[in-house]
Amino acid sequence: MQDKLKNKLVVQKYGGSSVSNVEKIKNAAHKIISYAKKGSQVVVVVSAMGDTTDELVSLARKISSQPREREMDMLMSTGEQISCALLAMAIHDLGIDAISFTGPQVGIITDTYHTQAKILKIETNRIKKELDNGKIVIIAGFQGLSTALEITTLGRGGSDLSAVAMAVALGADVCEIYTDVDGIYTADPRIVRDAEKISHITFDEMLELASRGAQVMHTRAVEVAKKFNIPLHVRSSFLKKEGTLIMQNTSSIEKPVVRGVALTDNEAKVTLCDVPDKPGVAAYIFNELGRRNVNVDMIVQNVSHKKMTDVSFTVAKKDLSKTLKLSKGISSKIKAGNITSEQNIAKVSVVGVGMRSHSGVAAKCFSILAKNKINIDMISTSEISISCIVKKSSGKKALQVLHKGFNLGKKK
Amino acid sequence: MQDKLKNKLVVQKYGGSSVSNVEKIKNAAHKIISYAKKGSQVVVVVSAMGDTTDELVSLARKISSQPREREMDMLMSTGEQISCALLAMAIHDLGIDAISFTGPQVGIITDTYHTQAKILKIETNRIKKELDNGKIVIIAGFQGLSTALEITTLGRGGSDLSAVAMAVALGADVCEIYTDVDGIYTADPRIVRDAEKISHITFDEMLELASRGAQVMHTRAVEVAKKFNIPLHVRSSFLKKEGTLIMQNTSSIEKPVVRGVALTDNEAKVTLCDVPDKPGVAAYIFNELGRRNVNVDMIVQNVSHKKMTDVSFTVAKKDLSKTLKLSKGISSKIKAGNITSEQNIAKVSVVGVGMRSHSGVAAKCFSILAKNKINIDMISTSEISISCIVKKSSGKKALQVLHKGFNLGKKK
Repeated sequence: MQDKLKNKLVVQKYGGSSVSNVEKIKNAAHKIISYAKKGSQVVVVVSAMGDTTDELVSLARKISSQPREREMDMLMSTGEQISCALLAMAIHDLGIDAISFTGPQVGIITDTYHTQAKILKIETNRIKKELDNGKIVIIAGFQGLSTALEITTLGRGGSDLSAVAMAVALGADVCEIYTDVDGIYTADPRIVRDAEKISHITFDEMLELASRGAQVMHTRAVEVAKKFNIPLHVRSSFLKKEGTLIMQNTSSIEKPVVRGVALTDNEAKVTLCDVPDKPGVAAYIFNELGRRNVNVDMIVQNVSHKKMTDVSFTVAKKDLSKTLKLSKGISSKIKAGNITSEQNIAKVSVVGVGMRSHSGVAAKCFSILAKNKINIDMISTSEISISCIVKKSSGKKALQVLHKGFNLGKKK
Repeated sequence: MQDKLKNKLVVQKYGGSSVSNVEKIKNAAHKIISYAKKGSQVVVVVSAMGDTTDELVSLARKISSQPREREMDMLMSTGEQISCALLAMAIHDLGIDAISFTGPQVGIITDTYHTQAKILKIETNRIKKELDNGKIVIIAGFQGLSTALEITTLGRGGSDLSAVAMAVALGADVCEIYTDVDGIYTADPRIVRDAEKISHITFDEMLELASRGAQVMHTRAVEVAKKFNIPLHVRSSFLKKEGTLIMQNTSSIEKPVVRGVALTDNEAKVTLCDVPDKPGVAAYIFNELGRRNVNVDMIVQNVSHKKMTDVSFTVAKKDLSKTLKLSKGISSKIKAGNITSEQNIAKVSVVGVGMRSHSGVAAKCFSILAKNKINIDMISTSEISISCIVKKSSGKKALQVLHKGFNLGKKK
């Protein structure tokens, strides 16, 4: 290990739970220094301490029911600024040189979409200069400077994105994501008791798992890591053992058909009834929703009866009221009928690149659910995943039986 | 009042106690808006909420006993960033347009002395643009961007300085300092019961009072206001009544000889014994201390005996241990004798521009103290002030008898 890290450039990201108090900050400092001492150059991206961001948001809500997003960014970006300064101090206190930077200060340039900005580029001159001076560089995650010279934030989980983008910009050898779990599991261990830690997983599988409910990694961060082929190592900040390596191709000899299962109940279903079945109507509906930033996940269109059809789709629950309002306008425009919605649903997904070469996975999935008397409401499939909408009350059971049915539990 | 404020540019500063919680922030927002509605352009400089800065400092001390000053600035500057964002939100919530800025963002350029930076210049383009767009501009006090592009803070009370410097840069008509007291008093009302609020006071008198212990205004801020002749209005953020106007010349008909009295016990006395009495020795002593950033206040040199003399001076208590260390070096260099120190002292001062034209004020001061059996240890006088060092235990009594003796109490 010692040799492998010599002359490497490592980007490490410490999540909020890894720096939630003074002791944990000191612990992170020790971890960072142990890396630096092995000869690596280390750039650290850090989240706000524990629940700081939530506390700031709640403070803002006490002031105003609808605080402007520009001011929210001004407010929320302080959380990471605090933790990065404290982490630099903790490293200094151990006798090692380090320097902290805010996102705007170090040149993380974003677009102008406050509270969910996208990184456009990262100016690395300052970072490289400090690294060459032998310093550990600590950067406030989650934030940047917009092209309009305003402070922006990258949205929830944005520190993962900061870390990956930083790794890309610096040409890092690896990007380590330190968190409060020790890796990616075949299912949420709180629901599936014998869920197993995955040692290697592909970017594509991780993306499917993340977008289907696995909360450990932020989807956007995995997308960027995939695009630039930066291996991600998700691991615990409290344990020494290896976590999960997310990479282009896993070289493990056993290639399981299914890598993991995931569950989420944060979506709601919307149905537009009696939609005229003619070309361009579906495109119109989803263009309109997309234009207003409603992210649609699953879409199902029933067989047409008398040139009429029902179109169902799922959206994040938080977008439901906005979606229903937009849908009314859409429905009257395209001369469709009623709009119904259902929040009492869960989505269970089965993910694995092995599906590409194995037929019958979908069928096996449906039959496992059927055998357990779990009714499927909607189905959507991709090349490497199958998702089913079930009743919310059946969600956990569905996850458990699929995990068992695909034999994902700990090998005894 | 309505007319007087038309087309005026006002800089208002809200101290930490004026924005210490959600209710107070909303209260400040109302106050700001009521000004803006009268037709003034308003720029607001805001401190961190309540004890935020102290809490951040204490957090840093838990991480490291000697946190680096650059990182302290990174950390502490978040306090004002939070309050300025929240204040902007509170103004929005009342339907008025406003925009918040950090010090670095808006172009408050400082030198590179972290934790006690000096403002070099303020770039006003952005502020003027937003004011011309009809916005109230909210600026984080206490902070700036150094010429090395680092975040700096201006030292304790620095928000006053931010406000005054902003008023100078923008050519404001007045700079209002909102705080938790309703003005400057003839003495600390907690010690002198019948202390009276002063309606008008000159910059010089305010400077003497502030540097002699009156805590309401920051000395550096008053100095800058004096230099650029910006009237300061110190007033309560919770009451409607007028506070104290600090200006070049007060036009009040009655010109009291003495404007106020002040007390401080945060100084310590150091004595270098048996200092060779030859030219250049005193200069050497105080140059050496100044070079190490020890601020010396009063200096007394005794009459020489056998070409030897004792040199006593006072310094801030926090600098005492540093001063004693330096003094040892100085003493051995100049071949002087022992060094003694005394912390158990208080300094009582009498201030007023009227002294310039009235002789006998010093004599009256000494006789008031003598009549009350208060022994004077050191004396220092300026054109408009007299300060005496007395035993710490006599400090409050000295303040009270001087206040009474110079007839400063409320006129019945």
